[in-house]
Amino acid sequence: MAARKISLTGVKPSGTPHIGNYLGAIKPAIDLSDEFDAYYFLADYHALNTMRDAAAFKHAVYDLAATWLACGLDPQKVVFYRQSDVPEIFELTWIISTVTPKGLLNRAHAYKAAVDVNESAGNLPDDGVTMGLYNYPVLMAADILIADANFVPVGQDQRQHIEITRDIAVSFNAIFGETLVPPDALIRDEVATITGLDGRKMSKSYGNVLPLMADSKELRKAVMKIVTDSRAPEEPKDPDADNVYSIYKHFATPERLAEVRDLYLNGGLAYGKIKQELFETLDVRFADARARYNNLMADPTQIDAILADGAERMHITAQRVLTKVRAAIGKTTYAVGAR
Amino acid sequence: MAARKISLTGVKPSGTPHIGNYLGAIKPAIDLSDEFDAYYFLADYHALNTMRDAAAFKHAVYDLAATWLACGLDPQKVVFYRQSDVPEIFELTWIISTVTPKGLLNRAHAYKAAVDVNESAGNLPDDGVTMGLYNYPVLMAADILIADANFVPVGQDQRQHIEITRDIAVSFNAIFGETLVPPDALIRDEVATITGLDGRKMSKSYGNVLPLMADSKELRKAVMKIVTDSRAPEEPKDPDADNVYSIYKHFATPERLAEVRDLYLNGGLAYGKIKQELFETLDVRFADARARYNNLMADPTQIDAILADGAERMHITAQRVLTKVRAAIGKTTYAVGAR
Repeated sequence: MAARKISLTGVKPSGTPHIGNYLGAIKPAIDLSDEFDAYYFLADYHALNTMRDAAAFKHAVYDLAATWLACGLDPQKVVFYRQSDVPEIFELTWIISTVTPKGLLNRAHAYKAAVDVNESAGNLPDDGVTMGLYNYPVLMAADILIADANFVPVGQDQRQHIEITRDIAVSFNAIFGETLVPPDALIRDEVATITGLDGRKMSKSYGNVLPLMADSKELRKAVMKIVTDSRAPEEPKDPDADNVYSIYKHFATPERLAEVRDLYLNGGLAYGKIKQELFETLDVRFADARARYNNLMADPTQIDAILADGAERMHITAQRVLTKVRAAIGKTTYAVGAR
Repeated sequence: MAARKISLTGVKPSGTPHIGNYLGAIKPAIDLSDEFDAYYFLADYHALNTMRDAAAFKHAVYDLAATWLACGLDPQKVVFYRQSDVPEIFELTWIISTVTPKGLLNRAHAYKAAVDVNESAGNLPDDGVTMGLYNYPVLMAADILIADANFVPVGQDQRQHIEITRDIAVSFNAIFGETLVPPDALIRDEVATITGLDGRKMSKSYGNVLPLMADSKELRKAVMKIVTDSRAPEEPKDPDADNVYSIYKHFATPERLAEVRDLYLNGGLAYGKIKQELFETLDVRFADARARYNNLMADPTQIDAILADGAERMHITAQRVLTKVRAAIGKTTYAVGAR
């Protein structure tokens, strides 16, 4: 079989992706498929912890799937599926929970943060904490282990989840024999933080984002809102202190970027003109992606078909891994409809 | 559809059932199938919390299934399945965990008992506690809710689990609309405790049991070990203080029981003779069951076939309930192999 290692990337639906997400997460993740047997999944049942509205939930999942497909994820080249379409994940979640010390989850960052907030507010430690929040590192471990993944690309803040997954795999193997593959974190090179319209990190929660799949008019409007100082065109400016330049540097050709940098440093750069240039560059760059996105969202049954195909392919992997696990614990294998 | 209410009985594999289990649990549970649309399942993945040996686990599951079938559970009349064959249970476990307050599980009896033991021993509260132990009331809730069960026959000590299940169903319905059926506990009339060989409650942990499926020789040996006093046949005896009578009263015909009682009270009862009579009665009573049990255990593929049939029938119910749940939360329904 493939000598290539397996990578697994999970993405959680949580609002319309922006250009910061594209540069910081989507593009680097898609690039992994050149190097690995790459699995990607929509972590929709993780999102259930916060999403409580059926229509919004459904839209968020389609939106996320359409965005990744539009940005170049090739569902023929990779395995792309919805977490909730793979029942083996949830069965494995239960099985591994029986070898997971509760103490391991008491130390999980997200749970500890919730407890800290409660204690600062004078509430009971578990106030408002659901079992979904508390238990989600176990689900995440099952997400990873069901794919026999060798590498999971994550930011530093997610490193603990991979460590918990390793601990669980090692515990299981110690009790039932070598079965599960302990994964390694593939810590992303720190992507230069993408600057938002106001100079802070681009983030939906700051309301300072450039939309990724918006139409030209909306995109232009957002670009024109980028905060600059009021220096006249002929005055020299520091490009590295300017919010337009900070975004444009990720999209301009090296040649054009050198010219623009020169204009900043030596005078001759009008903010209105450079914003228009940034807008036009982004508009061209994402035109095809936007068209693909709009096409998919106009008829989401296309997305369902792609994800169903991905789920069928994922089942082959998931059944193979679950069959190993079931044999290890002593469960007779049974497959629906196999009789 | 059926106007009859639905009952659900789960049994955990944990060692070879004895005659106390038969009278106290198996027979009353089987009798429910006259009154309800009755579902029965082997809670094998609950047992994973304590069983760590593949061969022993496999044997315990077959042993339990064979015992129930041998005792008269009719797999054509009821739905009889292995929990681990119904993946919908584990998916529902995750979904409902996102609406289950962690505080609810902090108050669960089994978890609190484990914490108490740790605290008495000066250990950390969660020492040796697995997520499987902590989370198992949520799995139990999913077991019940996936069957749309109206009634769950339980002993008093299990009443809390039904209350937790109700709480979870009510929470889910409050957030996502009426979807899950909150079940009621069907508290068993207190079955007179079955006396063991030594006069204490018959229990595997006391080593004082009469085996249910043992051969005649082994059964006779156990009966002969019943502890009696040393009174001679002609002396009057209190039947209600005698261990042989305490067991025999569940199996003798009313007419014979009256005669025997008279012998106890008025003299003429020899312990050796009444033990022989008890043995013969049990031996005849369970002869057919034992033959069925031995036949099933000699070729467990028969058990697999029965359970596979039960699982296929359970899937129809489970898919119907899960489809309602998925619609309520906004997940697009997807079924393996449906494309």
